[in-house]
Amino acid sequence: MTTKEKILDTARILFNEQGIRSTTTRHIAASMPISPGNLHYHFRHTEDIVIALFEQLKKKYDKMMEEVQELSLTQLDDLVPVFDILYDQINNYRFLFIHFVEISSWIPEIKKDYQQLLLRREEQFKNWLDALTKQGVIVNLADKTREGIIKKLFIVGDFWISHNALYKQYTGDEARQDFVSTLRSVLSPYVNTTKAK
Amino acid sequence: MTTKEKILDTARILFNEQGIRSTTTRHIAASMPISPGNLHYHFRHTEDIVIALFEQLKKKYDKMMEEVQELSLTQLDDLVPVFDILYDQINNYRFLFIHFVEISSWIPEIKKDYQQLLLRREEQFKNWLDALTKQGVIVNLADKTREGIIKKLFIVGDFWISHNALYKQYTGDEARQDFVSTLRSVLSPYVNTTKAK
Repeated sequence: MTTKEKILDTARILFNEQGIRSTTTRHIAASMPISPGNLHYHFRHTEDIVIALFEQLKKKYDKMMEEVQELSLTQLDDLVPVFDILYDQINNYRFLFIHFVEISSWIPEIKKDYQQLLLRREEQFKNWLDALTKQGVIVNLADKTREGIIKKLFIVGDFWISHNALYKQYTGDEARQDFVSTLRSVLSPYVNTTKAK
Repeated sequence: MTTKEKILDTARILFNEQGIRSTTTRHIAASMPISPGNLHYHFRHTEDIVIALFEQLKKKYDKMMEEVQELSLTQLDDLVPVFDILYDQINNYRFLFIHFVEISSWIPEIKKDYQQLLLRREEQFKNWLDALTKQGVIVNLADKTREGIIKKLFIVGDFWISHNALYKQYTGDEARQDFVSTLRSVLSPYVNTTKAK
């Protein structure tokens, strides 16, 4: 692991545990420990660290979406491993999701980037739902229904963790199961039950 | 309107427009205008204002839920006026929803209160979905399905506004319609289509 990677990992954990307001570059340097000067050589501002972490997450998302496109799905439960990976990513970068609106006002670059990411993602999800229909996993979807499913997948995917922080505060396996079953339940009404098995 | 009510209204609008971090009791007093001393006579800390606004919203929610229980619903679209009222409430207090996790860490009283509110709400929603089934509006729901619907209603209800702020940034009627149709789409797969009309 390079110093840069170590800084990002330390920052991610501190942001997750202590929030984005009370974590400064000084705290990050102190908890590694490296000198503030060394940290500033790699990242000048806290914003630069947040942007680099957002980029990390984006790459992981893109990789996951590529893998999903290649999966051959025969039933809804074949998606559970994908939701599992998604859960790990969201949980590892939870500060981003919990403070998403705040971060996007603070760092306009992230806002713009995330909008473009969601636009791309929306197209990918459309193709992916169409493939699930063709494979007989889910029923034919009207355009508006498909749009609604994608919107719910986005909202549940991005904000389940905030809902959980406010309400049940599940941790560990309970949290993972709740996340997976909530996402699954967005699709389950559309399972093609007439499919020959 | 009493001074206290005017303070709350001014604070709510400033919180919505400028966020919770950059809005101080000093700003609120200045934009009314009243003296800081007068404001402090009514509310000692920003926290006290946030708590009072949360209480306002809670009362409005409770009133709305009572009205919903009394509605005689014959089809899913009879719920649209309820979602409309909900939209107005969420939009009027959007700072609470956008910064919900942050506020709940900052003010533990709100966290505890909101958990109890959701517990109560979960029971109300269960009864309400059962009533919709009895009235033939939606099909019979397995316990787990009903639980999933309620969770999705909570997540979409509380976080649609954050999702919108990050993605489409709809305003006015477009925002309202998108909110209503997304909430409606949580229930639409369960409409009882065999019902005699």
